[in-house]
This record gives sequence, C-alpha cells and structure tokens, in this order.
Amino acid sequence: MAESFDSLSPRAALVEIARDFHARGWMAGTAGNLSARVDHKHFWITASGKPKGRLQEKDFLLIRIEDGTVVERLAAPDKPSAETSIHRVIYTLFPDARACLHGHSIDACLAADRAVSAAMGLLLPPLEMVKGFDLWEQNPKVELPLFENLLDVTQIAESVRARFREAAPAVSALMVRSHGATVWGRSLQEAYNRFEILDFLLAYMARAERAG
Amino acid sequence: MAESFDSLSPRAALVEIARDFHARGWMAGTAGNLSARVDHKHFWITASGKPKGRLQEKDFLLIRIEDGTVVERLAAPDKPSAETSIHRVIYTLFPDARACLHGHSIDACLAADRAVSAAMGLLLPPLEMVKGFDLWEQNPKVELPLFENLLDVTQIAESVRARFREAAPAVSALMVRSHGATVWGRSLQEAYNRFEILDFLLAYMARAERAG
Amino acid sequence: MAESFDSLSPRAALVEIARDFHARGWMAGTAGNLSARVDHKHFWITASGKPKGRLQEKDFLLIRIEDGTVVERLAAPDKPSAETSIHRVIYTLFPDARACLHGHSIDACLAADRAVSAAMGLLLPPLEMVKGFDLWEQNPKVELPLFENLLDVTQIAESVRARFREAAPAVSALMVRSHGATVWGRSLQEAYNRFEILDFLLAYMARAERAG
Amino acid sequence: MAESFDSLSPRAALVEIARDFHARGWMAGTAGNLSARVDHKHFWITASGKPKGRLQEKDFLLIRIEDGTVVERLAAPDKPSAETSIHRVIYTLFPDARACLHGHSIDACLAADRAVSAAMGLLLPPLEMVKGFDLWEQNPKVELPLFENLLDVTQIAESVRARFREAAPAVSALMVRSHGATVWGRSLQEAYNRFEILDFLLAYMARAERAG
Repeated sequence: MAESFDSLSPRAALVEIARDFHARGWMAGTAGNLSARVDHKHFWITASGKPKGRLQEKDFLLIRIEDGTVVERLAAPDKPSAETSIHRVIYTLFPDARACLHGHSIDACLAADRAVSAAMGLLLPPLEMVKGFDLWEQNPKVELPLFENLLDVTQIAESVRARFREAAPAVSALMVRSHGATVWGRSLQEAYNRFEILDFLLAYMARAERAG
Repeated sequence: MAESFDSLSPRAALVEIARDFHARGWMAGTAGNLSARVDHKHFWITASGKPKGRLQEKDFLLIRIEDGTVVERLAAPDKPSAETSIHRVIYTLFPDARACLHGHSIDACLAADRAVSAAMGLLLPPLEMVKGFDLWEQNPKVELPLFENLLDVTQIAESVRARFREAAPAVSALMVRSHGATVWGRSLQEAYNRFEILDFLLAYMARAERAG
Repeated sequence: MAESFDSLSPRAALVEIARDFHARGWMAGTAGNLSARVDHKHFWITASGKPKGRLQEKDFLLIRIEDGTVVERLAAPDKPSAETSIHRVIYTLFPDARACLHGHSIDACLAADRAVSAAMGLLLPPLEMVKGFDLWEQNPKVELPLFENLLDVTQIAESVRARFREAAPAVSALMVRSHGATVWGRSLQEAYNRFEILDFLLAYMARAERAG
Repeated sequence: MAESFDSLSPRAALVEIARDFHARGWMAGTAGNLSARVDHKHFWITASGKPKGRLQEKDFLLIRIEDGTVVERLAAPDKPSAETSIHRVIYTLFPDARACLHGHSIDACLAADRAVSAAMGLLLPPLEMVKGFDLWEQNPKVELPLFENLLDVTQIAESVRARFREAAPAVSALMVRSHGATVWGRSLQEAYNRFEILDFLLAYMARAERAG
C-alpha cells in the first residue's frame, strides 16, 4: 500500500478514494464527485453517472477552472459531473486547494437537520478531532458553512462563491443541506483526512442528544 | 475490478452482488433473491435456500416469465426462490427491467414501521439522493409503494400486479412491510445503484426524528 | 470461496466463522466460543483465551460430550473454553445439532434489556426473517429463551439443561442476558445462517421504538 | 495470518493495528497514536501527522521513557506524536505494560457525555465483556478513569500520573473526555483485545437508554 494518496497519480488516488468512500456508504449509486488540481488552471473531475464503487482511471475529464471548458475527455461520451461548478469555485477562491471531495452521507444529512431553517452554519461539536482542521483551541467553537440545496447546482455554486469571497470559512469544508459535504485540502491526502474527520464530527452530532 | 456489473455475465454479476449485499447485512442467512433477465421471455433467479455470502454461479435457475416454468436447472435438486412470482410480475409489467434485486434490511423494516397501518406508500425523504431514481425535482415528494407481508407470496405478487398495472410507481422499487425492499433497473448496474440509494433513504428515515 | 461452510473441514470452517464474526464485532477480544460435532460422542471447541480475529486451526480441543473430558489437545497448554458446559448440554439434548456458535453482540445485549427483570424469554419481532428458523407463520410470535448471566457458567448450563429437557425452544437459540447469544444448527452452515438471522432480529429490536 | 500480534515485530504489529483501527473509524485522518515498549527504557511510537490507514513501518520514533528523548528516527523530519507524554506516564507507572493504544471513537465520546461535568470516572456497564479486563465478578461495578481534555497534552499526562500514582485503575485504560480512549496491555495482543473490549462497552453505553 502506498504511503500516502499523494504518492499516487491524482486519478489513481481518486479511484482508490472513490472505492473507499463507496464502501463506507458515502457514494451510494453514482452519488458524489471527486477532483484533483493538475496545475493552477486545470483539474481532473469524475465523469457524471459513474458507479463510484467501480470507478476507473478513465472516468475523469480535465476541466479548465476559469470557464469550465472540457480540455480532455478520456472516453468519448463522458460529461463532467453536474457539480463541476462548485469545484471550480473552490479552486478559484483557494489557490492552495489541490483536491476537492464531495460525498453524500446519512450522518451529514441528519446532523444538518439540527440546524434551524435558513441557518447559515452548523456549529461543530468541540471534540479533539476538530484539530484535524488545524484549529488548535480548547473547546473550539467552529461553524461549518451550510447552504440550501437547489435544483440548479450553478446557483449553489454562486452562493458558495458569494459567501466565501467575503470571508474564507473556518474549516476547508461546506455542507449542502439534505445533500452532503464537500471538503478540500492542500493535498489529496489532506482532503481525504479532513473528509473523514468532518464525517466523524457530523456522525457524533447526528447521534448526540440535543442540548436542553 | 470490472468497470460495471453490466460488463460481467449476468450470473457472475449476481454472485458479486449477493456477496456484497450479504456483507452489508442485506442478505443474512439465505434471505433475499436476485434475478437478471436474459431475453424478453426468461430470467435467471437464485435457487432457494442458498447462503448468499457464498453464492456460486451454479446456484441459479432459468425461469420462463409467462408461466414460471423452470427452463434450466444447473444443479439437480435446486428449486427457484419462493419469491419468483414477484420477479415475474416485475419483468411482465416493465419490459425494460433487466434485473430485479430483493434484500432484507433492518433499516428498511424500521423505516416502514413509520407508516400507519394499512398505508399504501411510504413518503421518501426529500434528499438529493432521490435523483438517483431519475427524479429531477427540488424537494421531491415521492412515495415508495408499500405492501403487506403475507405468508403466501403469490398473494403479494398478485397485489403488486394489481396495483402496478393501474399505474407504474414513481420509483422502480417497492417495499414489503416487516420484510424488505425489491428494486429493479434497466441494467444490472442500475438495479444495484438504486438498491443502494433506496437503502440510504430508508436508513435516513429509520434514524431521523419523527416530525411533529 | 467454498460453496458452503459444510464443504470445509469443521475446524477450517470454524476458523473462517471466527474471523468473520470478529470482523462484525461479535467476538471482540477473545470473547465467544465455537464448536462443531465430530460424531455423536465428541465435538471440537475453541481453546480458551484465543483472539478470535486471528484464530488458527490448532486452537481447538476435542471434547467428549458425556463428561467433558479433553480427548485431544493440539497445543499443550490449551484449555477448553469456559463455556464448554453449555455446548455439552446442547449436543446432549439435541442429537441433530452439528454446530454451536456463541458470540457477544451489542445489539443482543441491548435487545435483552427490553425484557423485564426475571423474564424467561424475549419476544422476537414478527419479521419475515423469522422464517430462517423454519417457522412458517404469518406474523409469528416466537420467544427466544432468556437466561440470567451467572459467574459460574456451569450453573447457566444447568439452567439450560433443566429448561430445555422439559421442552425444546421454538428457535434453535438462546440468549444469556448482558452476555450474548448461542445458536445451533443441523450443519455448520445452518448454525452460521441462524446466528446472522438472530442478530438481525435482535438488532431490529434494539433500534425499534418501544411499543406503548 | 499470524497467530497473534505478538508473533510479529512490534512495528509490523502496530502498522496492522493502525490499518485495522482506521478501517473501524477509530483513527480518522491522522488521529490517534500507538506505541510498543522495546525494553524497560524505550518504546516505539507513531510519528505525528501520519494517516493511520496507510501507516508504514518507518513511521515510528524510538523514545526514551525517562525523559522523552528521541533515540532513533527512521525518517529525518518526523516528530513524535503530540501525546507521547501520556505514553511515557503509562510505561513509567506500569512496568508490565508492553503496548499502549490511543484512538478516537464516536461511541467513546458519546458514552463519556453521560458522565456529569467534572466526574472522575465513567461506570462501565455490567456486561460479560468486562471479564476481558481480568475482572471475574458477577455484575461488576467498574469505573473507567475519566480525564478532562486540555489543549496542553502534558497537563493531561500530569493528571494521569498524579492520579494513577496514588492508585492503579481497575482497568488498564483511561478516557479523555471529548477525545478518546487509551488502553494498555501486557502484550500487543492484550492491548488490542482490550481496546476492542472497551469500545464494545462504550458503544453499548452510547446506545443504552438512560436509567431513571
């Protein structure tokens, strides 16, 4: 086994991550999408509609960040993930982001249900695990940005851009209500680690008793 | 690993699916049954009483859809699954169905308990995951058809036929109360994806707090 | 993969079952014990204190049913499982029992907590899965025999003998409160299938909302 | 598969344990740390910040128990785990401890939430599984030592030292609130077994209904 996802080629790493996330129930059916930046102008992203438990290295398209153009397509009929627009926003706003992972988890949806209607964030529990986001505080009070789920994904992407352009979030992650989490990192391994960490925090929330 | 279950022979794919579903707790003991259509008149279905975690390619019988006749039997004493009648109804009513998967899950039983007695359907939660059933709405309100569990399986099959002949369900799936879900698809891979998606939705329901 | 546990030698099958049950959390640490009858007078049982996730074929002792004598020991210092007395009772009372499996599961302990103090049985939920115990009824009302956990295992064994000598239980299984389930079958595969089925039923109970 | 973790070299065993614990969700991201004593003066401990699901045998440092000096470093930039001070306390106070394992589990955090604020211990449930800590009582009443989570780990270590110097705990384990459990044993295998057993007990607690 390779030492780190960063020692693999980006697409090989994303294939391993897809199968891993699928096995954990975070990419049921064809849900979710995974990307890795190649250079400051491009990223690979999963093609739309591929079963994530059986992803292959050819199931990716190379996207130009600036305008979303498909620069390279490994299989003729493939189309980029419907949520490519969100990945473009992340790579544009955060130049050090090297990978961006989006999955759907039951725990994430249940945890987000705890936020009142129209809340802009979800207070994460003050567990030691929060340190995985480089937050070195005792009993940290950190909010995960929360967005409404809209049928038109480009509108979600626009909300993300508008909010994060004002201020970067405290964690390199966001949650779309009734949908799932998106996590990015300065490396493939960091994005993977943080996706796991966020799900740990959300799973704890989904199961913890509501405060008074 | 093959790219998709559809690139395998139908029985090889069903063996992989059986072991996968068994490992997830959806086919405990010999529970559940899996089938794949061969042509417009026939389908392969699992033999009765086989442990699904150790299924073999010879553990199938070829069934004529029209009358349920066993056309081919790979091992002499095998009998077709007791629930063959339900699969026959699905293949008869939905000519584009290529595979039909039935498993028993704890989450599915718990979710169905939320329906009032004699309810004909179970309202699925409006999660993004619903799109996996080709339903492209914001906050979709979709019902999973719900049937009572009867000792005589042919009566369940008859109820399914009677109801679905009137109108096809919104999702290519049904639930038998205190028993489990049956999901079909236009390909083996689609049936597999949708079984996963339905279980995700039912698991969410089983754990979500009851409204009001 | 072998077609059935019955196509393996008894000890090879029990080693596979131990690793499987360990991976599912039913044999944490060295918990649980597994046995298989060799002939009407003897059975192999796991040695005491072996980590079940790493069990080996030499980690068994051959026991005489009648008096518990160790007839064969594959490694000099091994002692038979502390719960050998319960296995002896099962093989004595049920001549067609070929295998007996005992594990500890969180769900089993939680489900048993639902029984009132000193209850002699636990009503199993009327799920389709109950048919795996050869009970072909609609909405079956079946009780799992429940025993108190005592420090002296031979006293538990004596309670089992006394109660089952009067009447065989409706299911080939019993539960010791705050401890775990014991399941037997007419073959290794049947015992394995039924252990899975019983855990499914107990896991459903542990999670279902209390009636009333 | 090796018979026991003790038949492997200490670092090879810890690599296997790390991947196992990671797969179970007890070492999400880079969380947790694992060590094994080499002689009465030294132990190997995981380097800081390594993803535990992909740990390698070179990801360890050799530490002198007495003063925490790094005696051997297999990769130049590696630093010992931030929680090395807790491991040093355990090896100092308990000369027969050969391995010490620290992970973060959701169940452990949820179970600890049941203790009132500032409680010094968590009463473990009286399950049969408690015997895995060499406690041979009927309905054992055993407390798991509970410590507050502090940003400065050396202060946690100091609290552990101060309390355990007075009296050894009833179980070879401790819990840091909102953080995770640390378990030690007289062998690698025993530490592993007991980590599993403790998590079983804490998972039961997290799910059991509150008394009263």
